[in-house]
Amino acid sequence: MRAVIMRPGGLTVEERPMPQPGQGQVLLRTLACGICGSDLHLYRHARHYYEAGLAAGVGRDVLDRGVVLGHEFVGEIVAFGPQTRQWLPLGSRVCAVPFLDGVYGELPMGATPLVDGAYAEYFLATEDRLVAVPAGVPVEAAALTEPLAIGLHAVNSASPVPERPAVVIGCGPIGLAVIAALKAQGRTTMVASDLSAFRRELARQSGATAAVDAAVASPFDQIPLQPSVVFECTGVNGMIATCIERAPPRSEIVVAGITHGAESITPATAITKELVLRFVSFYSPEEFAGALQMLASEQVNWRPWITGNVGLEEVPAAFEALGGSARHAKILVRPGGLLPSS
Amino acid sequence: MRAVIMRPGGLTVEERPMPQPGQGQVLLRTLACGICGSDLHLYRHARHYYEAGLAAGVGRDVLDRGVVLGHEFVGEIVAFGPQTRQWLPLGSRVCAVPFLDGVYGELPMGATPLVDGAYAEYFLATEDRLVAVPAGVPVEAAALTEPLAIGLHAVNSASPVPERPAVVIGCGPIGLAVIAALKAQGRTTMVASDLSAFRRELARQSGATAAVDAAVASPFDQIPLQPSVVFECTGVNGMIATCIERAPPRSEIVVAGITHGAESITPATAITKELVLRFVSFYSPEEFAGALQMLASEQVNWRPWITGNVGLEEVPAAFEALGGSARHAKILVRPGGLLPSS
Repeated sequence: MRAVIMRPGGLTVEERPMPQPGQGQVLLRTLACGICGSDLHLYRHARHYYEAGLAAGVGRDVLDRGVVLGHEFVGEIVAFGPQTRQWLPLGSRVCAVPFLDGVYGELPMGATPLVDGAYAEYFLATEDRLVAVPAGVPVEAAALTEPLAIGLHAVNSASPVPERPAVVIGCGPIGLAVIAALKAQGRTTMVASDLSAFRRELARQSGATAAVDAAVASPFDQIPLQPSVVFECTGVNGMIATCIERAPPRSEIVVAGITHGAESITPATAITKELVLRFVSFYSPEEFAGALQMLASEQVNWRPWITGNVGLEEVPAAFEALGGSARHAKILVRPGGLLPSS
Repeated sequence: MRAVIMRPGGLTVEERPMPQPGQGQVLLRTLACGICGSDLHLYRHARHYYEAGLAAGVGRDVLDRGVVLGHEFVGEIVAFGPQTRQWLPLGSRVCAVPFLDGVYGELPMGATPLVDGAYAEYFLATEDRLVAVPAGVPVEAAALTEPLAIGLHAVNSASPVPERPAVVIGCGPIGLAVIAALKAQGRTTMVASDLSAFRRELARQSGATAAVDAAVASPFDQIPLQPSVVFECTGVNGMIATCIERAPPRSEIVVAGITHGAESITPATAITKELVLRFVSFYSPEEFAGALQMLASEQVNWRPWITGNVGLEEVPAAFEALGGSARHAKILVRPGGLLPSS
């Protein structure tokens, strides 16, 4: 089978042996897999993570095998491993919290050379983690479950008072997911910001009450001076410091954007304003199921989020496009093309 | 009357006119006033705050008048201003949340040249903010109300689950107040750390279940690897980063230590561990009253905290002692000496 392999030198499409499901595992045929900001992050810092792996004692032979990225997947069950319960029939469409359970315990999928992700024609998943995609729900919607769960978790971690103004900095997939989750919560004031006019429009379509151009204005100028909830969804260096500087007293700042390296903050300002910084990353299985339910019930205006579908060979170009273009949100990898079954 | 004046050049004792209480204000004779870490901070950075005042448009004549520090006070009512309710009789012993309300609105006492604090024989306070010190409660105990309220507020802001392990970094007055408040809450595991053996002993006397020497060990090695509550009470540069590095996943870090300038943190670590950083500074009037009640009822083992009583002339030496000695916690300024009435 074919798979996209990431190494410090770049992305290549290669032939790989068909994966064999182990105990409690299933073999899935990839229907769709979203390209995540964390995939771009791993790609940009591939050399760093390779060196970190060496330093952590991972063998060079393992690291040189490369990483098959992809954890925002929808697949179709094509085979069962030993000791599976087979509660879902062959051919079922499924997604899952992306961890593979095996002899090494619970390992993240598509993030290290140890467990391959879904930028491939086939991949392995844990049967007990599978969530069935309801009949009639488009593959594209189900593929957004994972990023929406991230946004839902970020919103769930913050004060749920709907009257508390919300600021969402960055309208990429995580920012859009946060906006959708805030809308579902009934937020009355929700100001988004982004450099891209295209993504600002997506933010408005997703439920933001206003979307400002970060190049010329600050979302903090558009909210009342009262305790607010701020979602940092860019991962841009210096943005946490800006949030501390500009957030109204007694606000919460939810940091969902992944940054690399150190950030500088001024604690005295945060102390004077009694700010709370919540660093969030990972949702619960209930939040994952809740996100799929929100998509399945069309509670989320998800269609505009998908700005591209690509085959495996087009993944390197898609990474370049996502890194540089202001006209992209979520690109889905479709190893089998846009099949009738999808 | 005599008062201690802080200017960028240092501390001096000078003669000042007797303050005249305005509308809603009372004149208090100083019985005791604690030297706070924030006073030391203002003293160390007096030049910076002077320049910041100039930059903010405060006149040089006002700034050159100097700052009378002191906001952890106990006083005796000696005169009432106009339009006071006089619900407490002359001679009453009182403390108060240290804000003076006047023609300029609500201003902090003893922190700027605009409103003098209690490093003086007499000072002004707002009648409506007065809290009566119950008969029989020592002046020394009442003088600890303000710092204990800071610790109580820090503890109230964090998860109240008593089984959640607590780490208290720094056993100065704020660290000790945090420990006392945690003890009142019934915490079962509470590991403190400090460089000073003297202050570690104070921590144990105040309720810490263990106290480690920060020079040779980490308190994080003494708690189970489960979500914890960490109180940063040193204000030492780099300590927030250490807390982020060492706190168990899903811990809360309460930042109560005042730092000057920028700090470097690694958001990726905080995100992976889903840490919460709570920056705290100021208590509510209810917390202030609650702190006095804890002291009055001897729920807090406060006596070891007081490591000195000094007259106004000895304040400069006390500042030096607090800045450099490992054998101090709280020093009280007693302009009238240790009077029989105290």
